[in-house]
Amino acid sequence: MADPDREMLSCREGFRTIWLAQNGDVRIIDQRKLPHDYVIANLETWQDGCLAISDMLVRGAPLIGATAAYSLYLAARSGGRAEFDRASAALAESRPTAVNLRWAIDRVSRRASACSDAELTASTLSEAGAICDEDVDISLAIGRHGLELIRSIAAAKAGEPVNVLTHCNAGALATLNYGTATAPVYLAHDENIPVHVWVDETRPRNQGSQLTAYELAHNGVPHTLIVDNAGGHLMQHGMVDLVITGTDRTTRSGDVANKIGTYLKALAARDNAVPFYVALPSTTIDWTIDDGVRDIPIEERDPAEVTDVYGVSGEDRRTVRTIGSRTPALNFAFDVTPARLVTGLITERGIAPASREGLAALFPERADGTQANA
Amino acid sequence: MADPDREMLSCREGFRTIWLAQNGDVRIIDQRKLPHDYVIANLETWQDGCLAISDMLVRGAPLIGATAAYSLYLAARSGGRAEFDRASAALAESRPTAVNLRWAIDRVSRRASACSDAELTASTLSEAGAICDEDVDISLAIGRHGLELIRSIAAAKAGEPVNVLTHCNAGALATLNYGTATAPVYLAHDENIPVHVWVDETRPRNQGSQLTAYELAHNGVPHTLIVDNAGGHLMQHGMVDLVITGTDRTTRSGDVANKIGTYLKALAARDNAVPFYVALPSTTIDWTIDDGVRDIPIEERDPAEVTDVYGVSGEDRRTVRTIGSRTPALNFAFDVTPARLVTGLITERGIAPASREGLAALFPERADGTQANA
Repeated sequence: MADPDREMLSCREGFRTIWLAQNGDVRIIDQRKLPHDYVIANLETWQDGCLAISDMLVRGAPLIGATAAYSLYLAARSGGRAEFDRASAALAESRPTAVNLRWAIDRVSRRASACSDAELTASTLSEAGAICDEDVDISLAIGRHGLELIRSIAAAKAGEPVNVLTHCNAGALATLNYGTATAPVYLAHDENIPVHVWVDETRPRNQGSQLTAYELAHNGVPHTLIVDNAGGHLMQHGMVDLVITGTDRTTRSGDVANKIGTYLKALAARDNAVPFYVALPSTTIDWTIDDGVRDIPIEERDPAEVTDVYGVSGEDRRTVRTIGSRTPALNFAFDVTPARLVTGLITERGIAPASREGLAALFPERADGTQANA
Repeated sequence: MADPDREMLSCREGFRTIWLAQNGDVRIIDQRKLPHDYVIANLETWQDGCLAISDMLVRGAPLIGATAAYSLYLAARSGGRAEFDRASAALAESRPTAVNLRWAIDRVSRRASACSDAELTASTLSEAGAICDEDVDISLAIGRHGLELIRSIAAAKAGEPVNVLTHCNAGALATLNYGTATAPVYLAHDENIPVHVWVDETRPRNQGSQLTAYELAHNGVPHTLIVDNAGGHLMQHGMVDLVITGTDRTTRSGDVANKIGTYLKALAARDNAVPFYVALPSTTIDWTIDDGVRDIPIEERDPAEVTDVYGVSGEDRRTVRTIGSRTPALNFAFDVTPARLVTGLITERGIAPASREGLAALFPERADGTQANA
């Protein structure tokens, strides 16, 4: 059997982005090294977990949440309740905008406060595991709903591959397994539905070329890397059947915050009548906001992400600076795609129209709560 | 006085991208080395000129044409009419899609066939010089028409800078001086109208970050590098007043072929009511085509341009490969922006609506000719 300490497992082999070592430590893939090097990071202390989040060894909302949960277990293991509380406060600050981070901390904390000191380590470990198992279930549910979209396009293409375009990495590496945007693709591939993915490079951090391309290759899914500029041209020429992206935060009216550049692809999809879907666990819906363009704050990150590029040169790993010293750069990390450009939201409960009514129909218990607040 | 063999001159200093050395050789900037190194290439033979075009030491339609013209002079200088004819045939094949290449060869050839053998070298040199002088005049005319757009926006902004977004390099480095898309910006800057340029990186070849940013910095024009993904977000938030790009080929109905990704910016401009202008010398209008999306062939280039990035690492110059070995890439170099998304075409004769009628009104002599052919 394949060993996750040596190589990434395929999704079907039960791949997980975070797992328990024999000695009770926690292990993750150092995703900053992909696709050139598969390096495992061992998390022995909660501080290791905190750094893994802040230094972006792990990224993607579900995986960040899972790493925080396992870090709380490491805190309990080493120093009981006092250490658990210290870890909880520090972890909450480890990444500014990750919704799942606080959600996971809150959830493990509730479990911790309901158990005895003697049970603390075992309880937090069990809760972290439950969070991970549930995340896989959510990805699979999203995958099954999205699969129907691919299946119906495939039926009309008479054996030609269904061309899916995706932006950034909302893949297995961003979640526990299967991903969100990629889950329908992996399930289609498993069912031998011919599918091919256009992978946007996703400047400036190249999550498309470095992560999405890597995991698709690893799972044997046909794919082609393109620059972020290319999608419009491909859509004009009938080379894209379907766009599926992930999202970091979706408003209750269906506006979608996702990696910078998503909005441009949505515009091109609309202009060429290509369906544009967004895959998301319902935990990333912000039920307090309507107007995403106005009300979702957009993180501005280090300009060095724009000016410096990491890669392989011969046997070396190098970062090269691409621009001259007299040019400043600006680096907004996300943009917001208005609901009017989104064909549908693929959630674990089904596909909703990107509208307040659409989301409320699928999640009446949440929509009711916030309409009262609005 | 500044020496073009040692440093790039500013546009106002009479910068030229190609010039005659004291010994009668021709000199160019090896633009592949910018922005990290300012390297002059000496063209002693027409074969040197041919390689400069095919290896992209020079790029940009006007500069390619000028380099071809000067290469014909070098051929005449070394081997008279026989060498001139050999050079003419070879140069025509040096770059597949450059409209100005054949135009310049034809023009110098006409001049050559009208002069005696004794006059051949002097005549071809004179014609090459005339082509260059006229190109500067065209850039300045485009600049003056575009300047009015910037001036009227500035009038409404009460001293705040006018934010111009541009894609790729349609700058001084692509022409003889001033550029096309950049000419209005340089003239505005010269008149102390506050102007700031958002420079799209322009993957995969990074002409924005490596050339446009370089020449703007060199001319003291405030500018900021952004990834190609960012423009939509900036437009959503009122941070772009005007888009100006260049074009490689414009149809008689106003469809615009330009660097891949231009279409996405045009869509975002339309969605946010930002004016989207294209600057062009009328020589790049193709009077034989209406539907650019259907009828302009799009060059597919080496995938290595997508996967490999050139830059500086410490004191070294390095090319790094950004992706894993199991991922193929596809590299379309241009896309076509339909006329319906173009606010206007800034030509040397004035600003035309992007339509058959608009172009015909400015260029009746050309439009008449081809309507007869159509």
